[in-house]
Amino acid sequence: MELLSTNVCFGGEHRRYRHTSASLECDMEFAVFLPPSAVGSSPRPAPVLYWLSGLTCTDQNFMQKAGAQKLAAKLGLAIVCPDTSPRGLNLPGEDDSYDFGTGAGFYINATQQPWAPHYRMYDYVVKELPQLVENELPVTDQRSVSGHSMGGHGALICALKNPGRYQSVSAFAPIANPTECPWGQKAFSGYLGDDRSSWEQWDATLLIPTARERLPLLVDQGTADEFLETQLNPEALADICEKFHHHINLRMHRGYDHSYFFIASFIDDHLNHHARALGLI
Amino acid sequence: MELLSTNVCFGGEHRRYRHTSASLECDMEFAVFLPPSAVGSSPRPAPVLYWLSGLTCTDQNFMQKAGAQKLAAKLGLAIVCPDTSPRGLNLPGEDDSYDFGTGAGFYINATQQPWAPHYRMYDYVVKELPQLVENELPVTDQRSVSGHSMGGHGALICALKNPGRYQSVSAFAPIANPTECPWGQKAFSGYLGDDRSSWEQWDATLLIPTARERLPLLVDQGTADEFLETQLNPEALADICEKFHHHINLRMHRGYDHSYFFIASFIDDHLNHHARALGLI
Repeated sequence: MELLSTNVCFGGEHRRYRHTSASLECDMEFAVFLPPSAVGSSPRPAPVLYWLSGLTCTDQNFMQKAGAQKLAAKLGLAIVCPDTSPRGLNLPGEDDSYDFGTGAGFYINATQQPWAPHYRMYDYVVKELPQLVENELPVTDQRSVSGHSMGGHGALICALKNPGRYQSVSAFAPIANPTECPWGQKAFSGYLGDDRSSWEQWDATLLIPTARERLPLLVDQGTADEFLETQLNPEALADICEKFHHHINLRMHRGYDHSYFFIASFIDDHLNHHARALGLI
Repeated sequence: MELLSTNVCFGGEHRRYRHTSASLECDMEFAVFLPPSAVGSSPRPAPVLYWLSGLTCTDQNFMQKAGAQKLAAKLGLAIVCPDTSPRGLNLPGEDDSYDFGTGAGFYINATQQPWAPHYRMYDYVVKELPQLVENELPVTDQRSVSGHSMGGHGALICALKNPGRYQSVSAFAPIANPTECPWGQKAFSGYLGDDRSSWEQWDATLLIPTARERLPLLVDQGTADEFLETQLNPEALADICEKFHHHINLRMHRGYDHSYFFIASFIDDHLNHHARALGLI
């Protein structure tokens, strides 16, 4: 694990690392914010919020734009931001569009060539990256997960598919029912093939009926989000949660869009949600 | 004035505009954050903090990375971010380096060709832009000014050269004595020519002895700033302030660098400093 850069931030440290990922068979970069309590003279390991970013993002967007570090520093919460896909593998078509390939790993495990050996972002964010981080950095194995858009959905499936692994989950403007929207259909047919039955295990809305753990879902959505109608469909998720008595707090925010200005406006509510579940407050 | 985009943010609005600048003889873009109190159903005009960014920045860096909107929304403070230079004029050499020409206007009025008719960022940020903003947007003529690096120095000279125009001034890691550092010497010789006597009116440290208004200076500086030794020299400014009894609060922050992670960590102190001067708290 190679340290690429470090910045003091709110008394804690923002760091970027590069490492060779076994799950993805390539080098990956990620960012971490360590609160002051984890880097001071008598460091205390911090629980971790894993943040999964949306299409086109890297490990940097959230760290630079969400304004999360102030409260995270105060709470004693670490934040880890993985990249959104493998990069620079020279696979045919990997850079042809913003919503497939580079920057668009969708946090699933691909089964189709040429993506299969590398595009296994689910294994990477659920298992490999936490293991690495917990071995190498002053953090505990207490985890929460959140994200935005593609990454909001990623957070939901990571939690729904892994009972006991996360203390809490939340999402901003998730692609809530990807098997039924253009972004999801493009990604799933490319990474998983045309057999739609193989898609179901990767769709949060379809996972709710059989979820073994009833972790409450905090979901924030802007009403002026330019992707709300065509891609996001939080109502599908809310409907199935209601039907199966899975607690969801879907908050519709009047006038907010899909940008980081929306995320910044409500990130503190999410940090507090996770901090409560992690026993920090 | 053409509205390019708008994002709801902390109950207020982040907007980007394009307009034709008379001072610069070209089109310019700028960003503004309007607090909820200025855009609600019974809007109340807000005083304005003008933020001047550093080398290579546009109007967007501060708005996306500083995390200022949360407190500004609460305080009822508007923020206006101009660009850092004219752009796309096709002047010979304008894009040859990061520290001269595009993205590097230095908030001075150029006298040398081919820069002179366009590179008049001082006139633009002190006069033209506030006049435009005060005419067109729900803001008052109560102004404060701050900035970072090149823009931190810009803020200092705007305030020092215009008694009564600003209620308060502050700076993050300003290029405090540009006539004595490589960045400043390159910019001033290019924009102002080789006669160093013409440079003096654009150097904050050299303006202190004759300043007619003793607006206290709040200056934050990281001790791990990679440009501290070679370019910034806040001690020169502090020394001359001490000699001429000009109040300066130079805060050295251990371990912080030149990045927006540093700015974000202390921006709230600056917003409160300005809010007090503007009568908001």
